[in-house]
Amino acid sequence: MTSIGIGLCGLGTVGQGVCEHLFGNRALLQQRLGLDLAVVAAAVRDVAKPRRLPADATTVRITGEWRDVVDDPRVRVVVELIGGLDDAFDLILAALKAGKTVVTGNKALLAERGAEIFAESERQGVPVFFEASTAGGIPIIKAVREAFVVNHFLSFHGIVNGTSNYILSRMTDAGLEFADALAEAQREGYAEADPTLDVNGWDAAHKAIILASLAYGSWLRPADLSVAGIDLVSADDIRFARQLGWRVKLLASIRARDAGVSASVWPTLIPAGHVLASVNGVFNAIMVRGDVVGDALFYGRGAGGSPTASAVISDLADAATALVSGGVPRCSGFRPHALYGRALPPGELESRHYLRLAVDDVPGVLGQVAGALGANGIGISSALQPEEHDSGDRAQLILMLDRAKESQMQRAVAELEALPCVRGTAKLLRVESFGS
Amino acid sequence: MTSIGIGLCGLGTVGQGVCEHLFGNRALLQQRLGLDLAVVAAAVRDVAKPRRLPADATTVRITGEWRDVVDDPRVRVVVELIGGLDDAFDLILAALKAGKTVVTGNKALLAERGAEIFAESERQGVPVFFEASTAGGIPIIKAVREAFVVNHFLSFHGIVNGTSNYILSRMTDAGLEFADALAEAQREGYAEADPTLDVNGWDAAHKAIILASLAYGSWLRPADLSVAGIDLVSADDIRFARQLGWRVKLLASIRARDAGVSASVWPTLIPAGHVLASVNGVFNAIMVRGDVVGDALFYGRGAGGSPTASAVISDLADAATALVSGGVPRCSGFRPHALYGRALPPGELESRHYLRLAVDDVPGVLGQVAGALGANGIGISSALQPEEHDSGDRAQLILMLDRAKESQMQRAVAELEALPCVRGTAKLLRVESFGS
Repeated sequence: MTSIGIGLCGLGTVGQGVCEHLFGNRALLQQRLGLDLAVVAAAVRDVAKPRRLPADATTVRITGEWRDVVDDPRVRVVVELIGGLDDAFDLILAALKAGKTVVTGNKALLAERGAEIFAESERQGVPVFFEASTAGGIPIIKAVREAFVVNHFLSFHGIVNGTSNYILSRMTDAGLEFADALAEAQREGYAEADPTLDVNGWDAAHKAIILASLAYGSWLRPADLSVAGIDLVSADDIRFARQLGWRVKLLASIRARDAGVSASVWPTLIPAGHVLASVNGVFNAIMVRGDVVGDALFYGRGAGGSPTASAVISDLADAATALVSGGVPRCSGFRPHALYGRALPPGELESRHYLRLAVDDVPGVLGQVAGALGANGIGISSALQPEEHDSGDRAQLILMLDRAKESQMQRAVAELEALPCVRGTAKLLRVESFGS
Repeated sequence: MTSIGIGLCGLGTVGQGVCEHLFGNRALLQQRLGLDLAVVAAAVRDVAKPRRLPADATTVRITGEWRDVVDDPRVRVVVELIGGLDDAFDLILAALKAGKTVVTGNKALLAERGAEIFAESERQGVPVFFEASTAGGIPIIKAVREAFVVNHFLSFHGIVNGTSNYILSRMTDAGLEFADALAEAQREGYAEADPTLDVNGWDAAHKAIILASLAYGSWLRPADLSVAGIDLVSADDIRFARQLGWRVKLLASIRARDAGVSASVWPTLIPAGHVLASVNGVFNAIMVRGDVVGDALFYGRGAGGSPTASAVISDLADAATALVSGGVPRCSGFRPHALYGRALPPGELESRHYLRLAVDDVPGVLGQVAGALGANGIGISSALQPEEHDSGDRAQLILMLDRAKESQMQRAVAELEALPCVRGTAKLLRVESFGS
């Protein structure tokens, strides 16, 4: 049986998962693929550190230098799992120049430098696979690139950051404040010691950039996105949203309109009865709307060693079968084209919004607020002023607003915060009803 | 740009959809694939019949004979959409012998004669693609074969017949009886004039055979399955199930255990809060449990011209890229292996059950019923005897039973129906809680 030599760079949670399952289900893979996926070398940061590897992995060469893996003549596919930007970029380019297929799960790197990586991939005629970069075990990259190949994608709506979703789920179910839910997520191992990219929305934004770029044929830049994280959501917002029939999710939204492509990540109110509202805990889900297939939804584990390893091994199987077929691989991983317009500036993105203001509890306040919104062309579709005890002379005002551009909203919020009757800063979340 | 000639056999709803979207999104496909998918010939039953085809489809050769399409030297991929068994089988074998890649959506044919078709595919070294055979626009075949390639599949649970799901949804939401909901589905175009295979469970069973065979590497025979349809569900059953916290769905279930592989299709009570319970109307959904990826779920339109065309065109793209790459295609479509045991006999399948009996409204009846069940080793986990008006001396007895083999249940039901206090036939449905 033909054997394809695989080199792993990085043996953290995902790398160990890849190793474990390649060895553990090796006979199954051989039957299904008609070839053997053989890990022959692995690069780690600290060769002395003890690690959990399968018993039959003793033949794997362990090295402290990723260049050893790339240079190993037995290695035909290089798996980049070291993370970070600079070293990982150098590694991928070195592998491509050596004619070795690349498999990566590095979402931050693809989002920042995907265009360069795929330009090099094209020049060398060597593919780069990246299923593990987006939504872990959910095969959304394969679905977008292959299964839905005939579709113009009208929109994507996804819950693609498990840490945020866990925190929001706990804030919703147990009424926790953000800081307490984050601390719990860290204790449970669902949030890292430094959770910045998870809670500020940028981990989800990286995935949105990859999906949008693949779907529309050119690489979005981080500056093209409007991004906000769950660190601005409070238990009050979740409670008020519930009273109005909504749930709060960190939603990545991508849309193609005649004017261009837009992508954003925002804490968003979605209808309590919508299927995405029932995606809880660390699970991910992505809803795709295609002009041919209609609505489709994928749900599964978006992170963790084993689900992500499942995605990496799917890429390894595709990479290896392309190598043994002797032909030209189906694609380099990403095919640029210019059928869609450029990304819309974030300020042009339209959405409905939820606005929460702390205001003086005196007559005439709603009129002043409505006036400031109206002056910016923003209508109010509903208002809630909940009875609050021990709030003194202060009241909460919750407004569901009509559709408006982000630039309009920013101007309106600045004017509202300057009103004498408005205390502190305004809280702004998005609202999505999933209409056409 | 390289062009791949495609021949369509059958221009019904799906064939017209394939034609419409291949022409309509041709520029997009060219950009994404780097090649042109060109429909050059189409076989129809009646060449004189007027049909809706894209304006630029005038170059397509229309013929009344599928052999003309297979023999056309420009045709490199043959799409079988004529349905039925004998002609479709002859067509596929003729295409394979002519060295032409086959794409088919014919679930009944694959379920009945898949083993023969893939044996010929293997002999000829020519692949057969069949994404459209199972769950329409949901890319479950690609997911099982490629995305989840490293996974031992522990189970599949699917709602894979849109007609049944529409009927059950209407019986649940509007309290309709089966016959009225079926008549409505026919008026709305969601059920065919002859709905036999939809409502007796066999359309779903064909899909279960295809999925199980692909997942476990050998073709199940129809006789290996336990199959029941929604024609045995009444509005009463749905109402009683609701009272107990369940919803009734036509569920296709596939499991691999040490003892072997089992597959079945039954009207099944599932927890009202489970994500599959919220799959309504004509939508399909399949939940996959893999040993590496964990739980994943796919949701989308399981039938209809456009969603099914999306799946056919995905196969066409895979077929065409394999042809232009010049290499050996990844696989013939199905790779047989013997890693899993044979299918369990249907009588060996274990499940919990819902049992509804019409009984005499006299003391001691529950004792007699419990005795007959107990004598067959079947415990009762809960019982409901609803207050019914105008029921005379007759009462309804609803029992939720502990796990039992199908053979056990059949014996017990026969004994129950022979009891003097039991009127008419017993109603038996399955119960699934999706435990491990």
